Amino acid sequence: MSELRRDPVSGRWVIISAERGRRSTDFVNEDTGISADSCPLCGGSESETLPEITAYREDGGAANSPGWHVRVVPNNFPALRVEGGLDKRGRGPYDVMSGVGAHEVIIDNPRHVVSLSELERKDVADVLWMYRDRLADLKRDTRLRYGMIFKNVGRSAGAGMEHCHSQLIATPAVPATVQIELDGAKRFFDYHGRCIYCDILRYEFEQDERVVMRSLHFAAIEPFAPRFPFETWIVPLQHTSSYEDIRREVADDLAGILQATLAKIEKVLENPPYNYVLHTGPFDAGEIEHYHWHMEIIPRVTRIAGFEWGTGFYINPVFPEDAAKFLREAEE
Amino acid sequence: MSELRRDPVSGRWVIISAERGRRSTDFVNEDTGISADSCPLCGGSESETLPEITAYREDGGAANSPGWHVRVVPNNFPALRVEGGLDKRGRGPYDVMSGVGAHEVIIDNPRHVVSLSELERKDVADVLWMYRDRLADLKRDTRLRYGMIFKNVGRSAGAGMEHCHSQLIATPAVPATVQIELDGAKRFFDYHGRCIYCDILRYEFEQDERVVMRSLHFAAIEPFAPRFPFETWIVPLQHTSSYEDIRREVADDLAGILQATLAKIEKVLENPPYNYVLHTGPFDAGEIEHYHWHMEIIPRVTRIAGFEWGTGFYINPVFPEDAAKFLREAEE
Repeated sequence: MSELRRDPVSGRWVIISAERGRRSTDFVNEDTGISADSCPLCGGSESETLPEITAYREDGGAANSPGWHVRVVPNNFPALRVEGGLDKRGRGPYDVMSGVGAHEVIIDNPRHVVSLSELERKDVADVLWMYRDRLADLKRDTRLRYGMIFKNVGRSAGAGMEHCHSQLIATPAVPATVQIELDGAKRFFDYHGRCIYCDILRYEFEQDERVVMRSLHFAAIEPFAPRFPFETWIVPLQHTSSYEDIRREVADDLAGILQATLAKIEKVLENPPYNYVLHTGPFDAGEIEHYHWHMEIIPRVTRIAGFEWGTGFYINPVFPEDAAKFLREAEE
Repeated sequence: MSELRRDPVSGRWVIISAERGRRSTDFVNEDTGISADSCPLCGGSESETLPEITAYREDGGAANSPGWHVRVVPNNFPALRVEGGLDKRGRGPYDVMSGVGAHEVIIDNPRHVVSLSELERKDVADVLWMYRDRLADLKRDTRLRYGMIFKNVGRSAGAGMEHCHSQLIATPAVPATVQIELDGAKRFFDYHGRCIYCDILRYEFEQDERVVMRSLHFAAIEPFAPRFPFETWIVPLQHTSSYEDIRREVADDLAGILQATLAKIEKVLENPPYNYVLHTGPFDAGEIEHYHWHMEIIPRVTRIAGFEWGTGFYINPVFPEDAAKFLREAEE
């Protein structure tokens, strides 16, 4: 059984998800085992995953049969499990909870493609709509406080499977990075009475130095203080803190700008590994004035070295104004 | 000229250190270029580095000549530069400073070894004493607020050179991770009136589940909520917040436990890449009751995937109690 443990100094929660009693050699040269042949996520291989949680099927076919567009299955090696109570407890100076939560794999499409940019726009819109469905569903579980959706593309970005997929981890605690954003945005709101992300968008449009592109409902921008080269955020133009409140036509528009932005990044950086993460408000916060959901895309062109993880102080060799220029000029 | 930029939401400072006007292909497949032959850090190759900042020489030989034990040179590609004023300024909603600071390479020994565990204990003690010297020297520069010392061993841990070396980056801002620790430790102190690290040590000795080893002045422990498998902290038994106040006999003792701990990690994990980082108090804080300097050692046995960096929520597949057991039982 996994545990959620809180570091008493930083307040950071860590999931310890382990089988006990392993040998020390089990930790050496861990292999994530990408297999391009006989991919269990492809359409037609439904029996090779755990039974599906949900799927979109036009023809209304049976669960775990072919004919789906987007399919959600439990992770084979879940870091958290849905069963049981939180059992919050102290242990000496420490805080512990049982490893309750959800760990799902969203298979973006039955076709074996690697990046979202290779799919049709309507297929990407379906994936984004499934994000909404899963967050809305898990939000009803009062044990859970946060749903984090992310995607790893390419082995050095942490992908265990080549087939284009997303992951969702829902947890009984708000993750540290999001909590830091919430706290910072709250401080700004308390002082200025405005959403800081709305202010950033307004300033970025005025300056027009770091804007990559705009759509009807979104902007793709290079942040002013990016941690990584070509780090790119996609931010809704209209203030909204909960991704799961998105409307269908807005999700369709998001599909377009997400795909175009990824295509630009892939053009400029020659198909780099990448991650993206959806930052949305906590389940129990409701719609809030000080937070603004957004997606963060990180191409992996530099290794994260000792300095970064030890300090939270990042060294980025590319000015975001330069990155924005390269991306603006790149054909999709 | 590089810039320090602050993310207005999280408060995180980022160093943007770039030559402007590069082509986009300059960012593809960045190579850190380890060369084992003709190593510029070896004794006898003094002319292949920038002129030294300082060195220990028994015979009192000339600067940049052979005969040294530990040698400090400027980084060839410094993220920060010593010259100039901070020029703190706003830019729209953002905070900016000039990229003032120090970026030094501490060459641990003239011999071409890869890990500290291969050196004599007295050589390691000299390296640790040089850390003290450099921090004490840079602390006198009132523009600087923090000195971060770290080590990357192995290419996948970010090492650009094979030859055993440490790095020091001194910055005009306190790095995010340390600031979070300082804030958390302060909150604990304000509530309880005690140092949280002192409390942790006391509890860990009582429980004796996560202690790897003890020396006269230090303990090596697996933290209760480790981010990474076999993450190990070395903590002074006596409360002290500033590393640079260390006494020589304490540094000698630290050399022993650091070397023994690294040897255990290398035995159990078969010479993994690793990083360590020295977490000490800010330059301008003086000796403080609520913070406690320590070293964090991270063997690199898992990749940091999308979930971790996007959320600050780590998934660790190894219980620290198991890791401690493996390390305790390992011969050095």
